[in-house]
Amino acid sequence: MAVHLAKGARDFLPATMRRRKEVISRIEKVFERFGFEPLGTPAFERIETLTGKYGDEGDKLMFRILKRGRGAASGQADMALRYDLTVPLARVLAMNPGMRLPFKRYQIAPVWRADRPQRGRFREFYQCDADIAGTESPMADAECLAVAATALGELGFDNFVVRLNDRRILRSMVQVIGEEGREVGILVAVDKLDKIGRDGVTAELKKMELSDEAIERLWAILDIPRGHAETLDALQPLLNAEGVAGIAVLREVLELALAMGVPAERIVIDPTLARGLDYYTGPVFEAEVLEPHIGSVAGGGRYDGLVGMFSGREVPAVGVSLGLERLITVMEELGMLGAENASATAIVTVYSEETRSHSVAAARYLRDAGVNTELILHTYKLKNQLKYANARGIPYGIFLGPSEIETGTITIRDFQSGEQSSIPLEDAPAWFSTK
Amino acid sequence: MAVHLAKGARDFLPATMRRRKEVISRIEKVFERFGFEPLGTPAFERIETLTGKYGDEGDKLMFRILKRGRGAASGQADMALRYDLTVPLARVLAMNPGMRLPFKRYQIAPVWRADRPQRGRFREFYQCDADIAGTESPMADAECLAVAATALGELGFDNFVVRLNDRRILRSMVQVIGEEGREVGILVAVDKLDKIGRDGVTAELKKMELSDEAIERLWAILDIPRGHAETLDALQPLLNAEGVAGIAVLREVLELALAMGVPAERIVIDPTLARGLDYYTGPVFEAEVLEPHIGSVAGGGRYDGLVGMFSGREVPAVGVSLGLERLITVMEELGMLGAENASATAIVTVYSEETRSHSVAAARYLRDAGVNTELILHTYKLKNQLKYANARGIPYGIFLGPSEIETGTITIRDFQSGEQSSIPLEDAPAWFSTK
Repeated sequence: MAVHLAKGARDFLPATMRRRKEVISRIEKVFERFGFEPLGTPAFERIETLTGKYGDEGDKLMFRILKRGRGAASGQADMALRYDLTVPLARVLAMNPGMRLPFKRYQIAPVWRADRPQRGRFREFYQCDADIAGTESPMADAECLAVAATALGELGFDNFVVRLNDRRILRSMVQVIGEEGREVGILVAVDKLDKIGRDGVTAELKKMELSDEAIERLWAILDIPRGHAETLDALQPLLNAEGVAGIAVLREVLELALAMGVPAERIVIDPTLARGLDYYTGPVFEAEVLEPHIGSVAGGGRYDGLVGMFSGREVPAVGVSLGLERLITVMEELGMLGAENASATAIVTVYSEETRSHSVAAARYLRDAGVNTELILHTYKLKNQLKYANARGIPYGIFLGPSEIETGTITIRDFQSGEQSSIPLEDAPAWFSTK
Repeated sequence: MAVHLAKGARDFLPATMRRRKEVISRIEKVFERFGFEPLGTPAFERIETLTGKYGDEGDKLMFRILKRGRGAASGQADMALRYDLTVPLARVLAMNPGMRLPFKRYQIAPVWRADRPQRGRFREFYQCDADIAGTESPMADAECLAVAATALGELGFDNFVVRLNDRRILRSMVQVIGEEGREVGILVAVDKLDKIGRDGVTAELKKMELSDEAIERLWAILDIPRGHAETLDALQPLLNAEGVAGIAVLREVLELALAMGVPAERIVIDPTLARGLDYYTGPVFEAEVLEPHIGSVAGGGRYDGLVGMFSGREVPAVGVSLGLERLITVMEELGMLGAENASATAIVTVYSEETRSHSVAAARYLRDAGVNTELILHTYKLKNQLKYANARGIPYGIFLGPSEIETGTITIRDFQSGEQSSIPLEDAPAWFSTK
């Protein structure tokens, strides 16, 4: 029988898994440093919880699960695997009306999308989300932005930029050029600016039958140099009341994010930033690593309407999601992750069947003392034991032959330097604590 | 719109989630202390990978996932959620023939079963598995048993027993009473001994039309007092060659497990122990917490045939699985888990909009210094800020009013004792490091 993984799925062998755990742990520590609390939600949700939240494309890419029992035979599905971590959070908020707000939670967990698998895109991938629900304060928007920037810094990135915009600015922009209701089409065209250039975008807009005047007014807005407050100053006279409201909030978010420690050169107001998800209502932002140019590694924004879709109660919310897979890919390419060590610090070899119980006792002693210790289980040939230890990357070997047993000592070999020392077993924990 | 969780699924709110993370982290540390390495496998597998491995019941309880695109409309399923962590491991071994053996891996992750939800039984639950693949040595069986016993000890359990048996003893037992091929039915009856007593079991066996002589011979075996080597000594003359082979292995496993540190009173040979899963071939064991009597909290055994089901290559393997859900339930009931603390050590309050930037700067300073710090985001009413801090269970409050700002200090209040002290902000990291 040929054996395969499911399409678009991956195994993580120990070396990879250690690196993933290391990255996750660093992000988690930053989330906790900002006072976010862990939340767990199930892998699957009722279908009706997820549908209609991500747009048509999202609905199509949901993995549906067959009903148990008779439902399976009829092909009926009543559940789906979660598509992101935000909608499950909104469901939790709707189901727990007594929960104290603001609620700051993080969740680092896999999500599933039935995307066509391709290089770097998988059907199971991890998201690292931090969200603040229950306050409209721009303090919360700024904190989400700051926690993402801090996490990227903590992972070792020093060449990224967070682009910041507001949904109301985008909507206002389309309104003032007289094309209300065509927001999506126009923004899709504008979003291609990096790829097809200014002329390409203009051509697309003309194809959409925008008037020359509308296109000109649009460029007047888009051409405003990206920066900080000066970008907002230049934007303000060109937009209507809704846009001005967005600008006022962005002024505060920007100022607060800087005060929270985001370096000035890591943040920029970008009126062209249009994040895809249907549920955003206010500020949106996206972090891009510039060198190498790998695109977005984190993004977030305010979604004040989402919780209300589940219950009568509106709960304003804002959050950020770090794309773990892309971050890890880049960190591996750039050598930002150290060589992964084995779990074990020491490996206890076995001289012969007769002396085995001494090796077992030594391993037990070291483990009890808190030293991560592997014990050779499978062979009495020393050559094979050393090969195994070497392949596993365990730094220290422990040898107990007849002479060690007679003198009550063990021999410790540093596999890298080749140095050996013989010490009483009782001294080994102290010896390892200095390594 | 009414909003619900999927049936049999749970959310873990922060307090619960912290306790779960704590238990998982303790188990993980024990696995690593024994030199096991982390492995990650996807939530879903091809259907053919999972079916036929767990018996008919298992096949029925698998959650099937609809094919994407046209497959969804036709109700076709090509994947299923993993049912345990052992079969995915066997698939990984079959797909990676170059992997160095023995391969010691652990995996702590959810599995999914379409069980009828009931008290304490969920459709998504965590397993904590440690397995050793690639050696037939009883050292590996003993190590799996020892790592489970050590983990239970580490979690604070001091009143459990690991029952140990061998599949070959069970088979031999049925053979010598002349009922070969009726192993499953007989073992199901015997397994009820605790519930329906000796007479009940005898009645069931009679209903199965076992002869009086066969039943008598069976009781002669089952009546052997459970113990260590003496149990095996008494068992030996009553079984055939296959049973004797099982006994020889159990002698070694028992001796090694004791040498590895499993206390003698925590392990017992029990010829009636019959673990359900189809794939076990050699020693099997199960850990039960005795007080309170909650049944099995961990179990494992040898499954030398499973990897061969995926590829021509046979890879002997043995493993153990800890039932996280039951462990946590009991630990909570027995008060074995401390009160969960909030992520944050300190919460920075905000006196007014005018002083807000000082509070933001103080939070930033503390976070940069590694102090987990929450910042009030949502209100300027001190009363509400204190209520929030109290509900969140954050131990220390930080206050920066006009007088603190003037003198460049902060006031730290210990919410529990009510004690306050005013110190320069720069001294706060050192102050917190002593807490």
